Amino acid sequence: MPQRRFDVLGIGNAIVDMLAKASDDFVNAENIHKGVMTLIDESRAAELFGKMPPPIIASGGSAANTMAGLAGLGGHAAYIGRVHDDHWGGLFSHDMKAIGVHYETKPAVMGLPTACCLIFITPDGQRSMNTFLGASTELSTDDLEEDLIRDSAVTYLEGYLFDKDPAQEAFVLAARLAHKYGNKVALTLSDPFCVNRHRAAFQKLVSAGVDILFANEAEVCALYEKNSVEEVLPLLAGACELAIITRSEEGSLILNKRKQVKITAEKVVRVVDSTGAGDLYAAGFLFGYTRGMDLQKCGLIGSVCAAEVISHVGPRPQADLKKLIESKGIL
Amino acid sequence: MPQRRFDVLGIGNAIVDMLAKASDDFVNAENIHKGVMTLIDESRAAELFGKMPPPIIASGGSAANTMAGLAGLGGHAAYIGRVHDDHWGGLFSHDMKAIGVHYETKPAVMGLPTACCLIFITPDGQRSMNTFLGASTELSTDDLEEDLIRDSAVTYLEGYLFDKDPAQEAFVLAARLAHKYGNKVALTLSDPFCVNRHRAAFQKLVSAGVDILFANEAEVCALYEKNSVEEVLPLLAGACELAIITRSEEGSLILNKRKQVKITAEKVVRVVDSTGAGDLYAAGFLFGYTRGMDLQKCGLIGSVCAAEVISHVGPRPQADLKKLIESKGIL
Repeated sequence: MPQRRFDVLGIGNAIVDMLAKASDDFVNAENIHKGVMTLIDESRAAELFGKMPPPIIASGGSAANTMAGLAGLGGHAAYIGRVHDDHWGGLFSHDMKAIGVHYETKPAVMGLPTACCLIFITPDGQRSMNTFLGASTELSTDDLEEDLIRDSAVTYLEGYLFDKDPAQEAFVLAARLAHKYGNKVALTLSDPFCVNRHRAAFQKLVSAGVDILFANEAEVCALYEKNSVEEVLPLLAGACELAIITRSEEGSLILNKRKQVKITAEKVVRVVDSTGAGDLYAAGFLFGYTRGMDLQKCGLIGSVCAAEVISHVGPRPQADLKKLIESKGIL
Repeated sequence: MPQRRFDVLGIGNAIVDMLAKASDDFVNAENIHKGVMTLIDESRAAELFGKMPPPIIASGGSAANTMAGLAGLGGHAAYIGRVHDDHWGGLFSHDMKAIGVHYETKPAVMGLPTACCLIFITPDGQRSMNTFLGASTELSTDDLEEDLIRDSAVTYLEGYLFDKDPAQEAFVLAARLAHKYGNKVALTLSDPFCVNRHRAAFQKLVSAGVDILFANEAEVCALYEKNSVEEVLPLLAGACELAIITRSEEGSLILNKRKQVKITAEKVVRVVDSTGAGDLYAAGFLFGYTRGMDLQKCGLIGSVCAAEVISHVGPRPQADLKKLIESKGIL
C-alpha cells in the first residue's frame, strides 16, 4: 500500500440517527418495511417522527460510522458528506471531529435540513430504517475535495448515495481521481433494495472502478440477480481485486482472484442492536488492509469491531477499539 | 386522595441531555465537578460540547423524567417547562407527547436556546452533569397554567429551578394554588449544592408549602445543615406530611408523623448509568400514592422503576414499566 496522509476517505450520506424501540404492531400499522432501509420524504419523516416513541439521537450514516470506527482504531480517516447548518448538522460535524475524523465539508445554508434516519428496533432485535436524505442527498461532484482523494490510500464509497444521479456522478469521478493518484477504491453495497434500484450502474462501477467490494449475501445476490452466494463468487472474483461478503453470525468470506478466506464471527454475549455491524466490519478490515496485514487478520479485526457495535444501542463504537484489538492479541 | 384529571403535574427545567463516556483524566483536565450537577453558561456549554466525545442525545430534565415514568406506568401526567423553538425544543416536546404526558408550554421564540445538560459518565459509572439552563431558566409565574394545577392531585416541583428568582416565585405561587384547590404539593431537592445555595428559601417552602418531600441523604443533611440523617429525621417529620429519603443501593426511607417505613432497593444486575434513578423512584412512588396505596407499596414501585432506569444509559425508562410492575406482583 502507498503511504498517504489518510488511510481511508469515506464518502457517504451524513445522517443523524433517531433510534427507538417499537412493537411489531406499530411497525405493521405504519407499513414500515421491516429489517431494511426505506427512503422517505420530508413530510413522511415529520409524520413518523410525530408517531415514534421517544428516540435516542446519535450521529450515524454508513460510511461515517466506518470512518468513526477507523479513527477509533487509531487509523487516519477523512470524510466527505453534506449536512445543513442546523442543530443536527452541528451534532454530526461535532461527532466526526471529536473522534478525530478530518471533516471539512461546508454545511449548506440553503435547501433541505440535515438528513435523519428514523430507526425502529422491534423486540426481535431487527432494525427498520426510514431515511430522509435531506441535505445529504445533494452531494455532487462540487463537494469532492480532490486533495483528500489524492491523499487517501483508499476512497470508500457508500452505496446508499446511489439514489441520486449527481451523487452517482460524484462516485464515478471520485473513483477516477483515486486511480489517477495510484490509490484504491472501495465500495459498500449498503442495501439489497438500493442495489435492485440501480443494478446496472452498480455493476458498471464495480467492474470498472472498484478494487474492494463490501457486501452482505443479499446484496451480492441482488447485484448479479443470483439466488445463492456460490453462483456469485466466480463473477465477483472476475470483477474486482478483493470482495468481502459479510454473513452475520456466520462470519465473513474474503476472496481475491487466487483464494477464499473464511472468517468466523466474534462471539457476542447479547446482540442488542445490529445497527452499524457492516460499517464497523469495514472499519476494522480497512484498518488492517491499509497497514498491509494479511486477509485473515483484516477479517478478524473487522469481526471484533462489528461485535462491539452490536452489543449496544447505537451505530458507533462505545468501547476503545484500539485497546479491544490489542487485548485480543490480533496486532 | 381527590380524583383529578391528572395524577401529577411536574414543573421543572425542560432539558435535553447529551451523554458521553469520558475518562477521569478528561474530567480532571476540564475541572468538572465529579458526581454532581454544575451550572454553566452558554459559552462554557459550547466549549465543553466542542471537547466532549460523541454524545447520545435524549430528552431529560428531572421532573420531566418523573412525568415520563409516571405516564409509562399508566398514570396521568402533565408538565410545565420552557423550551426554545429549535431542534432540541422540538425533540423535548415530541418526547413528552409521545409518552402521553400533557405538555402545552409554548416554546419561546425569543431569548436563549433550549437547555442542555452535558453529562460525562466516567469508568466508575458516576455521572458529572454540566447544565446550561437556557430557555428553561426563564420560567416564571406567567408560565403557570392554573387549570393544570387545579386539575392535578399533586403538583411536583423540581428543586433545580430554585436557581432563579422568578422560578422560585413561580414555585411559591404554584404551591399556594395547589392548596387552594385542595391538592398536594411535592418537592424534590434535586442536588445538595443547589440546596446549599438556597437553604433558607428551601426551608421556608418545605415547612410552609410542601406536603411530600423527596431527597437523598446529602440533600436532607444540606437542608438542615446536619451531618447525619438521624439528626434530620425529627426535623423532617415536623416539617411536612411525608418525607422520602432515597439511599442508592440501601433502598429508601419513608416517614410521616407516625411511622418510618424502610424499603429495600430492587436488585440490579449491572448499574450502567445512575442518571434518572431519583426521578424514576419519585414516578413510581407518586403512581402508588395517587392511587391510595400504602407507603410500602409506593416505595416498592419506586424502587422497581429506579432499578429499570439505572440498568441502561439514558434518563428515561426503556422497558414497559406497567408490565414490569405487574410482573413483580406489586399491584
